[in-house]
Amino acid sequence: MENNMKLIINQKVLEKALVHANWIIERKQAVPILGYILVEASTEAGLKLTATNMDMTIVDLIECEVLEGGRFCLPAGLLLDIIKKMKPGADIVLEHSSQNNAILVTSNRSSFSINYMDPEGFPPIANTTYDVEFSMNTGVMKDAINIAKVAMLQDNTRFHLNGIHMHPEGDKLRFVATDLYRIACVSISAPVEAQSMPPIIVSKRTVGEVLKLIDASSEEVKVSVSENRIAFSLKSAPGIQTEFSARLINGTFPEYKAAIEVMNDKILSLNTEDFIEAIDRVSTVVLNSSNSIKLHIQSDKMVLSGISHELGSAEEEVDVVFNSPEPFDICFNSRYLLEVLKEITTPQVKVLLATSSSSTIIQPDNSEDNSEDTPDMSMIFAVMPVEIVQS
Amino acid sequence: MENNMKLIINQKVLEKALVHANWIIERKQAVPILGYILVEASTEAGLKLTATNMDMTIVDLIECEVLEGGRFCLPAGLLLDIIKKMKPGADIVLEHSSQNNAILVTSNRSSFSINYMDPEGFPPIANTTYDVEFSMNTGVMKDAINIAKVAMLQDNTRFHLNGIHMHPEGDKLRFVATDLYRIACVSISAPVEAQSMPPIIVSKRTVGEVLKLIDASSEEVKVSVSENRIAFSLKSAPGIQTEFSARLINGTFPEYKAAIEVMNDKILSLNTEDFIEAIDRVSTVVLNSSNSIKLHIQSDKMVLSGISHELGSAEEEVDVVFNSPEPFDICFNSRYLLEVLKEITTPQVKVLLATSSSSTIIQPDNSEDNSEDTPDMSMIFAVMPVEIVQS
Repeated sequence: MENNMKLIINQKVLEKALVHANWIIERKQAVPILGYILVEASTEAGLKLTATNMDMTIVDLIECEVLEGGRFCLPAGLLLDIIKKMKPGADIVLEHSSQNNAILVTSNRSSFSINYMDPEGFPPIANTTYDVEFSMNTGVMKDAINIAKVAMLQDNTRFHLNGIHMHPEGDKLRFVATDLYRIACVSISAPVEAQSMPPIIVSKRTVGEVLKLIDASSEEVKVSVSENRIAFSLKSAPGIQTEFSARLINGTFPEYKAAIEVMNDKILSLNTEDFIEAIDRVSTVVLNSSNSIKLHIQSDKMVLSGISHELGSAEEEVDVVFNSPEPFDICFNSRYLLEVLKEITTPQVKVLLATSSSSTIIQPDNSEDNSEDTPDMSMIFAVMPVEIVQS
Repeated sequence: MENNMKLIINQKVLEKALVHANWIIERKQAVPILGYILVEASTEAGLKLTATNMDMTIVDLIECEVLEGGRFCLPAGLLLDIIKKMKPGADIVLEHSSQNNAILVTSNRSSFSINYMDPEGFPPIANTTYDVEFSMNTGVMKDAINIAKVAMLQDNTRFHLNGIHMHPEGDKLRFVATDLYRIACVSISAPVEAQSMPPIIVSKRTVGEVLKLIDASSEEVKVSVSENRIAFSLKSAPGIQTEFSARLINGTFPEYKAAIEVMNDKILSLNTEDFIEAIDRVSTVVLNSSNSIKLHIQSDKMVLSGISHELGSAEEEVDVVFNSPEPFDICFNSRYLLEVLKEITTPQVKVLLATSSSSTIIQPDNSEDNSEDTPDMSMIFAVMPVEIVQS
């Protein structure tokens, strides 16, 4: 079969698509073909680039002028390096040269001759049938993922905690993560089709790639879910339609609801920014050691303190409103508190307490000033305290 | 002897000084006292902070309100962490508390109690007598160092190449560096006092710290040189007078003059930006392998090429003016060429060639358009070619 190819493409468009492909491709590969992308050009359909690392696959369909169709595998990293050094926005010609037995990449007075690999050696991309498909606003999805991921387990010791749990809950779609010390739960209005989706766990790596892809876009994203794969389709840039798909995490997410549906009746309310700054300062002396800070809460003020026998101690006061007549002491890992509080975008934050050793709820306080423009999104965090240190 | 202390200082000023101190202090120290700064307050002289890593010493004299004098050693890293989290520009009180046997750092509603070490344990700072002292414009010194350092040896295998050689040459002061593959030589008008200074080698680390210090300043810098030390004194920020001193490299700098005072009569002139971009693109295929690119020079154009048997090849054409009737071939390490060319700020660059295996001179071409506003500074680079690769 004759295999030729000639096409003309805008430098910026090709660079964007190659950037996508290189997100999931490692430069150094034990199996060389996995460092390559499959380039397929047809006079009818334009240019199609496929990259895979076996777990994740990214396919870009690109508008461009194809003069002659063909299929080749080209080194993803090298091709990106070359294209990104070309004059921005210039026309680039990609063509097969039988003489060199290579792909020629030319633009202005530059000419590259790139060795290719046989497209028949490219890993087959399974044709997944998805059970559920729904569309979402990319901004809402991005916010939900960004907030939920704060509580993801960071190390790779337990796969089922190493991602975001998505499941329908009535007419809401929930994004939940936990590392067993804290929980982040974001609920958004579920598209009707999503209300029947099975519960799934999307891996940390997948979440990261989706966020990068969404960052470049401002449109709707179509989400497709099967038993073991999820796919995101969107217009990722002018002239590029991208489908990113990934294997789901096969595991059972922990029963998290009991820990957020608690009846904590001690209510602390304070300025979010004040709280963050006070924790940040006090934690300076406990970083790299216990990381534990103590909150001594009274009806109108709270004293935060930290102590390190080696370095010294820190103390800080903030104004609060607390509904309990008795002073209350509780200790937290300062990093967990800080990371959660940084996701709170309301000026005031509400902390719901029960005892010094039980799950504590942290929520935006919308009672006074609801300046949020995302009325369809609600968030709740639960943080486990640490043992009270005697000081 | 009673040792007390109380002073009030602006957060921004203290943070700046502590940033300086932490440049030369490592957080983790086998000898704990080396992670501390010496804090000396006197009602007459203000606040003096001293940090040392034995090779380098930095002393900051700071204007502030001292209510009671005293001397303590405080942990440099922790103190900076605390101060930089305080409200920008706030008043900070540093005082000794006999009750806590600690230094209290307070500002607004924050209070830190920091364990100190005995100032008598701080390493003694030698009182160097300098033989030569001269003043320079900080901008000129910064430019000269920045240009010369491009040719410094990057690894630490040969101390005497691991820095910048400063020496007077007639009424000029020269800054020279070489890694034996290339030479960078910058000449500036020498202050009269500098014309009698001994030749010295300033270490890479010292050069780096001086550049950071100068970055923060726009004044004159006083340079003091002794047989084995160099000191830089300047007003590094409003309210802070800084003296940074460092041990010189003890060694003999190679005889570099023969390699730059050559009679290369083949003269190539071209647009600097075009040259940089062409090398950058062509080098894509040879990076991580030979890194060698070939220049095929004709009277009106030059073809740059690179080849990798694994990846493919690249070729690029640029317009040039070459004074030799015969075509000329020469190969260079592309990184060496690129790094040197990036220091050329004139639109045109001049390359003086002799043979394909001898030292090649690269210089700004001031003949057409002298847009440089540094008439007292001249630079010259020498680059050794690599063997011509058959392609």
